[in-house]
Formats: sequence, structure tokens, C-alpha cells
Amino acid sequence: MGIVLGPNQYGKAQNRVFRVHRETARHEIRDLNVSTSLRGDFTAAHDPGDQSGVLPTDTQKNTVFAFAKQGIGAIEEFGLTLADHFVAQTPAADGARIEIEEYAWDRIRSGGAGHDHSFVRRGGDTRTTVVTVAGQGAARRAWVVSGLRDLVIAKTTGSEFSGFLRDEYTTLAETDDRVLATSLVARWRYGGTDVDFDGCHASIRSVLLERFAEVHSLALQQSLYAMGGAVLERHPEVAEIRFSAPNKHHFEVDLSPFGLENPGEVFIAADRPYGLIEATVTRDDAPDAGQAWLSVPGFC
Amino acid sequence: MGIVLGPNQYGKAQNRVFRVHRETARHEIRDLNVSTSLRGDFTAAHDPGDQSGVLPTDTQKNTVFAFAKQGIGAIEEFGLTLADHFVAQTPAADGARIEIEEYAWDRIRSGGAGHDHSFVRRGGDTRTTVVTVAGQGAARRAWVVSGLRDLVIAKTTGSEFSGFLRDEYTTLAETDDRVLATSLVARWRYGGTDVDFDGCHASIRSVLLERFAEVHSLALQQSLYAMGGAVLERHPEVAEIRFSAPNKHHFEVDLSPFGLENPGEVFIAADRPYGLIEATVTRDDAPDAGQAWLSVPGFC
Amino acid sequence: MGIVLGPNQYGKAQNRVFRVHRETARHEIRDLNVSTSLRGDFTAAHDPGDQSGVLPTDTQKNTVFAFAKQGIGAIEEFGLTLADHFVAQTPAADGARIEIEEYAWDRIRSGGAGHDHSFVRRGGDTRTTVVTVAGQGAARRAWVVSGLRDLVIAKTTGSEFSGFLRDEYTTLAETDDRVLATSLVARWRYGGTDVDFDGCHASIRSVLLERFAEVHSLALQQSLYAMGGAVLERHPEVAEIRFSAPNKHHFEVDLSPFGLENPGEVFIAADRPYGLIEATVTRDDAPDAGQAWLSVPGFC
Amino acid sequence: MGIVLGPNQYGKAQNRVFRVHRETARHEIRDLNVSTSLRGDFTAAHDPGDQSGVLPTDTQKNTVFAFAKQGIGAIEEFGLTLADHFVAQTPAADGARIEIEEYAWDRIRSGGAGHDHSFVRRGGDTRTTVVTVAGQGAARRAWVVSGLRDLVIAKTTGSEFSGFLRDEYTTLAETDDRVLATSLVARWRYGGTDVDFDGCHASIRSVLLERFAEVHSLALQQSLYAMGGAVLERHPEVAEIRFSAPNKHHFEVDLSPFGLENPGEVFIAADRPYGLIEATVTRDDAPDAGQAWLSVPGFC
Repeated sequence: MGIVLGPNQYGKAQNRVFRVHRETARHEIRDLNVSTSLRGDFTAAHDPGDQSGVLPTDTQKNTVFAFAKQGIGAIEEFGLTLADHFVAQTPAADGARIEIEEYAWDRIRSGGAGHDHSFVRRGGDTRTTVVTVAGQGAARRAWVVSGLRDLVIAKTTGSEFSGFLRDEYTTLAETDDRVLATSLVARWRYGGTDVDFDGCHASIRSVLLERFAEVHSLALQQSLYAMGGAVLERHPEVAEIRFSAPNKHHFEVDLSPFGLENPGEVFIAADRPYGLIEATVTRDDAPDAGQAWLSVPGFC
Repeated sequence: MGIVLGPNQYGKAQNRVFRVHRETARHEIRDLNVSTSLRGDFTAAHDPGDQSGVLPTDTQKNTVFAFAKQGIGAIEEFGLTLADHFVAQTPAADGARIEIEEYAWDRIRSGGAGHDHSFVRRGGDTRTTVVTVAGQGAARRAWVVSGLRDLVIAKTTGSEFSGFLRDEYTTLAETDDRVLATSLVARWRYGGTDVDFDGCHASIRSVLLERFAEVHSLALQQSLYAMGGAVLERHPEVAEIRFSAPNKHHFEVDLSPFGLENPGEVFIAADRPYGLIEATVTRDDAPDAGQAWLSVPGFC
Repeated sequence: MGIVLGPNQYGKAQNRVFRVHRETARHEIRDLNVSTSLRGDFTAAHDPGDQSGVLPTDTQKNTVFAFAKQGIGAIEEFGLTLADHFVAQTPAADGARIEIEEYAWDRIRSGGAGHDHSFVRRGGDTRTTVVTVAGQGAARRAWVVSGLRDLVIAKTTGSEFSGFLRDEYTTLAETDDRVLATSLVARWRYGGTDVDFDGCHASIRSVLLERFAEVHSLALQQSLYAMGGAVLERHPEVAEIRFSAPNKHHFEVDLSPFGLENPGEVFIAADRPYGLIEATVTRDDAPDAGQAWLSVPGFC
Repeated sequence: MGIVLGPNQYGKAQNRVFRVHRETARHEIRDLNVSTSLRGDFTAAHDPGDQSGVLPTDTQKNTVFAFAKQGIGAIEEFGLTLADHFVAQTPAADGARIEIEEYAWDRIRSGGAGHDHSFVRRGGDTRTTVVTVAGQGAARRAWVVSGLRDLVIAKTTGSEFSGFLRDEYTTLAETDDRVLATSLVARWRYGGTDVDFDGCHASIRSVLLERFAEVHSLALQQSLYAMGGAVLERHPEVAEIRFSAPNKHHFEVDLSPFGLENPGEVFIAADRPYGLIEATVTRDDAPDAGQAWLSVPGFC
């Protein structure tokens, strides 16, 4: 029997980049969390421990900040730039994966207008991207998976759950009117990289919200499928979309012991356990995903 | 030597109340986190363990939800109602403290307007209140301390820090231009309870933001003082205001090894350690705080 | 009306100190989280913003690490040393408060013995202290409040809750056998500073655990009182002890729909809401607490 | 173009099971966090929303608790039992994935011995398993991936990092003596299911700790590889092992401005960014992983 190295990657996680553009008195800011990782033939680094092919994670960090100085653009573009650089810079690397979150800020209102250099963090959902590049030159391939997380949404009617499979452990009552709520994670894979990333992100976020609002829900699965389908219909740039959606249960409180009726008015928002729905909506002719989703299972 | 019971309180923490108003097709929602506690003579419950004077925390939970059915109003009013109820209901209690957080939601945009029953959580800062009631009838006194937390704000210039005390352990350079950022917790004590709580909250939040933006900062302390002073000037209802403000350090990255200048453009946002500034701004003729701030130290 | 500065303090929070003693091949380590704060007359720093009396929080950080080089001793002693230094160093300061947590590590077992320089973090509860010093020289006073947090304990019988006050919102059933569980925070005030801090901490922790185990519980309040009383009886150095104890509810699951009995065997551990019990056990002749517990309410 | 459903799964996450065995006065406890999910042909549930094939997540929750009543055994066995049940129970399901964490508790010492029914949670690392079953009867296949997380380990010497690749963004100094620390996540795949799961887990944990201690480290990668190799050598039951290891940086503090030397004695433990090393050590003849690691990327 031989013991060998299997899938592996290494990098610098969570570089918190805050970039100020101050060419004029009206400053602009960008607030990112950038994680880098390299893949390739790093066998020697593991055994016998020869680091001569390893670009240190500290160097990766320096690179992120130095490149932020040159300008960021859409986070997808920043990720592509960094990934290409790392693959070119590191002979042993045959690929790089860059994960970026962006936190949105608004200008503080002052004197009826947005202030020049004072900002308040918006809160709410966070924009994300995962960029993967493999190879260089003619052999180069690139994938971009963008998304959002922590989009907390709820509807107070227009949601039912009934007609489900029952067995001896089933006690759940059927309902034709319940609160449906989730904290949505959505990730969509672009078919290419020649995309208006900022415009697409804003539009897809709107489509997701709108469809969640408008679709009469028979189950969280069905809502997600409708939301994903609408994104694919309106955005030919998107090859597929994946959702991870906790069903944030809101249980109707039994007020009858206190002589009170509770027709869908008072709920307790529960923490654990929660339903967890994960689904992909894809084109039947979507281009192959390649390494787009490649994060080694067991590593995430 | 005798061993005796000292300060004590008990209650039910973090009742997550989700209230839907569905009198018309255009639903309204409220999303609260309510913590209750009772104070008084609960000696027997501790020794020898006689619970006959103890209103169970489970009952307190039931009460919160039952009262939510009747209607909530401003969270300060809901807190006062609950506190009065608990003091009246529990002979051994001479006081009650109700702590409430409210999470804001917006209607989802759909077809150019806000949807009737679909919502997205706003994120950003959270509105808070702590209501304390002592006694009943003629002896009743009540205090309301409202506030906000997690208001993340930053300014990219108009902030300096210089002329400070130096000793043998001082290595910090003086600066006349730095990023100033904090995640603000503010709590203000109202002088009475006959207050437009919703209107005041919105206005105070605006004043805090505006003053943060407009004041040229010589130190976070000075910004906070100016912000608090402005609140007191514009809001006679407010007796005092307290701030807890981490100085979220943004360090300029040294890009000189890479042949790059960095005149206040690229920063690394640090986690720990952080400066922590805590300050109170008060009127010199503020009414006595009484039990307004009474949370037993060591308990929080 | 005048607007004035009220209670305030400032400092550097969460300095993560890792100290290695390597005088011999058998290394020793200490792993601390140190937060410092200064109190005094810092009015000018707030208004008009004159920082000439302010020892920067960056200097406080440097001082913590430089003093760690000289040696730490019991965390209480390290806190006293730092506090005295800051009061002496900063003319405007009339007091300092040092908060320290210590994380415990064990040697990794290797070849039947503890390894010389390899360690595994123990987990479980964390040791804490809050040291306050006011004044210098003849006027100096010092207080030490030590404790622990995150001590998660449970008993599976020997716990009842019955005979409590009932009102119209009470639905809770009485029980003479339930699971009692908490994640304990305990803080005790020493009557002086001439104490074997390490020995006391270990002993008090044992007493707390032992009494929790042995006392038949009529309520969490009563268990806490018995635990606190035992500490005071065995430790004359301790003037008072305060507890904050969430009642971590374990609800018996109703298995009757599945034809199964559940006599105290299968429970669901719930998150929120939870009962919260806070109590102090003190000597009737305890020395005055002075500033021992002084953390400005609204700041914590 | 057609829009279709891609990879999907659903279930109930984080069922917090607390199981008491009270056949004798000497109680035994188990404390688990169980997450279930089903995979298969759930197309109709997504579109048009027909739930007739969907076993509700609420039923999955009930099942977990009902089965806990019958007895748990090793968490791997409990997972296999649940997974087989769900596949058998749900015609549309062709697979189930059960994820379990177990929290360890110790008996409280009382009177020189472990108490019968009072316990303290151990803290430190958590034992984990992910069990996957596909199909039934002759077609049934099963995979078990067990592991641990939050095993925080450090060595204060015997660790170097030098001879690495340098480029124009490299500023890191080489070192032959540094602190090496991580919070280890390890997951190992068993080659079969006829395993002494409890015994293996304990032994593997010991091997990991021991090798971390004893190997002179040239890089975290090399330490991990040596640790994984030792597990494979001593445990023929294990087909492969995967690590995710943040390099928890401990930076030497520069004390020279204060006239102090710091030869590896005083460190600041940093939070972000951190190096992140992910690696697999496997046998060259390991059986195919099948669905062992199948958690849809983008879902985790």
C-alpha cells in the first residue's frame, strides 16, 4: 500500500480590504473580504516539506492589497485579475480560486444630500463571488459563480404546505396559510466572463425578490424553483443557479388557554431545528460547470 | 457571619415575537425580541427554595405573546404595559425590567410598488429599549432607556488624532487624516414617558448620523460628545445619552515595498484589539436616573 | 441648560497575549485576552477635543505586551500591575479597570508523558478577572472580581419545579423530576488582594461543581444560592459571589403519537427563549464593594 | 431552451437530541446535533409543487427523536439506522445523508468519585460524522465519513517556514522557529461500515495529536501530511483523511522600542486574515469514494 497526497489547496482567507477613492472631495469606498487559494502540484510541500514551490499566503495577502491600489472594478473582475496573476506567478499552481464578499455602504444624509466622505453600512444581504481560473494562455479557462447571502425574506400569506407524504412518524398538520420565511443564499454561475457583473447582480437580486413576493407558494422548494427559473429566463448570461434556504419556522402560538383566538397573527420565530432546502435550477443546455463549483467536499 | 441574598432578578430572555396585522389585505408586521425580568423579594425562592411567590418564566413568555395579540404600539409602550402587568401580577415583585429589540423590515418591490404581504429584512442597525417600572399606584415610577446598536459608520477624512500624551510605551504616530469607523451602540434616557417614541427614535438616529458626518473629528471621544450634545439640544425629552463605540481600526497598508504610494487609499480593516470608547453626555439639570440603568453589574 | 460629560472610560479591548516561557526545553504557555480602560478627568478630550491628557489606546496595547514579557503570574496580579501602572502613568486618570480572560491548555500526550512544547486547548469554561484600581499612594484602593464563564453543567434528576405562583397566563405543569442545565457565569469579589488567586480559583470552581451535583434542586435559584453559600463558607477571602445562569431548557419530547413512552429519556435542547436567573450571595458583613463592580450601565 | 431541476436535497437541520439512560441510578447521557437530508426524484415538489412524495422535515425531526428512544450506539451507527429508514420510508428518495455532532460530557467529581446524575460539558473538540446511504436491498451502498472539529493545537518550537517561493510581493522573512497553531477540522472516510467506530475515533484523535507534537514541522502542510499518513498506517479501516486547517498566526511582538528583547516569548494571536491549508491524504488503492463526500458545492 502507498500513501499519497489527494486534493489540496492553500491560501490566505479573509483579507479585509477597505479601499478609498479620493481623487476628488467626493470620496468613494469599497469594502471587501477577499480569500485566495492556489491549487496545483504542491506534493513536495507536503512531503518531504520542500517549500520552494509555495508562494506564501503572506505574499498572497500583500498582492491583494497591492492590486486593490490599482483599482477594483466589479468584484468578479477583481477576482479574475487576482486569479490570473497567481496562476502566472506560481509555476506549481495550475489553478486559483478567489472568493470575495462585498459589504455595501450608503452615504450619510446631511443637509438634504449624501455626504462627501461619511458613510453608513447598509446591512442586509451581502454580495458574493467565487472566481476560479485554471491554466494560462491558450489553455486558460475561467468560471464565475456570483451570488448573495443573508437575504432575509418573509411572506405572511400566500403560502401553503399540504398533500405531503405521511408515515407513522408524521404529526404535522396541513396548512393552506402559513408564514414562509428564509435567509436566502443564492449562487449563480455565469456562462462566460464577458458580463455586466454589477448590472446583472442588481437585476437578479430584484428578480429573486419579486418572484418570491408574487408566487403563491406550495412549498419552499416550489418558490425557489420559480425564482430560479425567472432568473434563467431573464438572464441568458446565467447558466444555472443554486439555493440554500433554511426554512425559518414561525410557529403560531396557541393562545386558546388565555381565551384568545390567533388566526395567523402571533408567531414565535424558532431557531433550531430548521428545515433546510437546497436546490439547483439549470438550463438543459447549460455549458459544463468544469471547476466552477470545485471546492473540495470536506473542506467547506 | 451570616450569608444572605444580594441583588437578584429572573425572567425569560429572548422571546422572539413575530406579529402580523392582517385586518386588510395589506399586512403589517412587527418583529421583536423581548426579554423580561422581575425584581423584588424572592428570598424564599432561593432559600429554602419555596417557589410560591415566583411567577414562572414560562408564564412570562406566555404573557408576552398574549399581549402581542392585543397590539404592540411603540416598543417602549409595549415594554411599559408588560412591566406594569408583571408588577401588578406578582405580589413579591417590586419592579420589572423589559428589554426589547426590534428588527425592521421593508416591503418587497413588486410591479413598482411595495407588496401587500411580502417583506425583506432591512439589516443595519437595530432599535432597542429597556423599560423599568418600580412599584404600583401612587408609588409607581417608570424609566425608559431607548437606543440603537450596530450602527456601523465610517468617515474617510475629516478625522485626526494628534497631540496625545506620550510615554515610554508610545509608538503611535500622530495623524491629521485617518479613517474613523465604529459600530455604534447608543442609549438615551427619556426624562419621562409621555413621549412620541417612534418620532423621537427616527429623529435622534438622524441627528447622530448627521453630526458624525459633519463634525471634524479630533478624536472619537470628541465626535461622540458632539453627537450626544446635538441630541440633547434638539430633544428636550432626552435627559442623557450614553455611547459605547469600538474604534474599528483601519490601518493604512504599507505598499512601499512594491513601489506603490498609499496616500490614504488602501486600508486593512482589523478585528482585535480595538479601542473602546464609552461616554455619557448629560444635562446638568437632568432628572435623577433612579433605576433607569439598573442592571446589576456582574450580570451583564 | 448646560450639557456636560457624564461617566466615561476608554481603553484597548481584547489584546490577545500568547506568552511562551522557554527558559528550559520544557516550555510553559499562557494565553490571555486583556482589555484595559482608564477613567478620570478626560473632559478636554471630549470637548473641545484636546488629547494632551489621553494615553492612546495603542500605548495601552504596547504596555500590555511589554509587561507580559516581564512575567504574568496569576491574571489577578497581572491586572493589578497593569492598573497601577496606568494610573501612575496618566495624570488625568484616577482609575483603571483591567479585564482578563485566560484560556487553558494541556500538554499533548506523547510517549506516555506530556510533550515539552506541544499543547492542546482544553476547552470548557474560561477563567476571568476584572481588576479595578483607584488612586495612588496612600489613597490607592484596589478591587478584584474573579470568576468563570461558560461552565456548562446539567443534572438529569434531582431537580424539581413546583408550587409556583399561577395566574391566568400560567400553563406550565409542575414537575418533580426534570433536567436542569445551565451555562454558568460566576463572578466573586475578593475582600482584599492578598490572596492565593490560583488556588482559590481552582477550589471555588470545585465547590461550585460539587454543590451543583449534590444539592437536590427545587429551582435554579435555590441551587445557585446553595452553591454561592458554600463558596462563602469555605472561602473567607470571598466577600460575595454573583451568578448569571440561563436556564437551558430541555423539553421532554412527546413520543406518544408513535406508541412510545418517554419517562425522562428523550429531550430536545432548546435555544430561545430561555429562563435567565441572576443572583448574588453575599456576607452580611461584607466590606463595601466600592468600585469593584463599576462598569457603567449602558456600557456593557 | 428548457429550464430543469438540478442537484437538490432537503431535510431538517440541527435536531438537538439529549438522551438520558436511567435504567439504574447511575445515569448515562448522550448529547447530539442531528441533521437529516433526503435526495432523489423530488422534481414534482419543485414544479408544479406537488408534495405527495415529500416526507416533511417535521416528520424527519420526529423520527430522529423517536429513534433516539430506541437507543443510539455510536453516532455512525445511529446515522446508518436513520439513513436506511428514510430511504425505505420515502419512495422518491434514492439516498439520505445524516450529519451528526456529539458533545462530550464528564461526570462531576463529588466525594472523590464521578456523580451519578450530574455532568459538566467537556468543551474542546467535537466529534462528527456524515453518513450517506444510497439505495436499498441488494443495491444499497453506504459511506461513513467521521471526524472532529475545533481541535485547537499549538507548538511553541519545532516549527519552521523557509525556502519558499519569492516574488515581487513577498516580504515575509524566513524563520526556523515559530509558533505553529491551528484549529483543526479532520474528516476521514472509512473503507466500510463494519468498524469499531468509538474505538477508532479515540485512537485516530490520539494519533493526530501525537504526530502533531512529535513531527518537526517544515510547514503546516507537511505536518498535516505526516499526521494523515500516520492515521492511514495505523488504521486500515480508514481509506482517506481530509484536513482543513487555518494557520492561526501568532506574531512576535516587536518590543525593541521599549528596550526589550523578544526571542520567541511574547506573541499577539491574530484573527484575520489567516492562512488556510486544506489537504487530503489517501491510499493509492483506496476504494472509490462514491457519494461519501457528496454535498453539493454551493450548498455548503
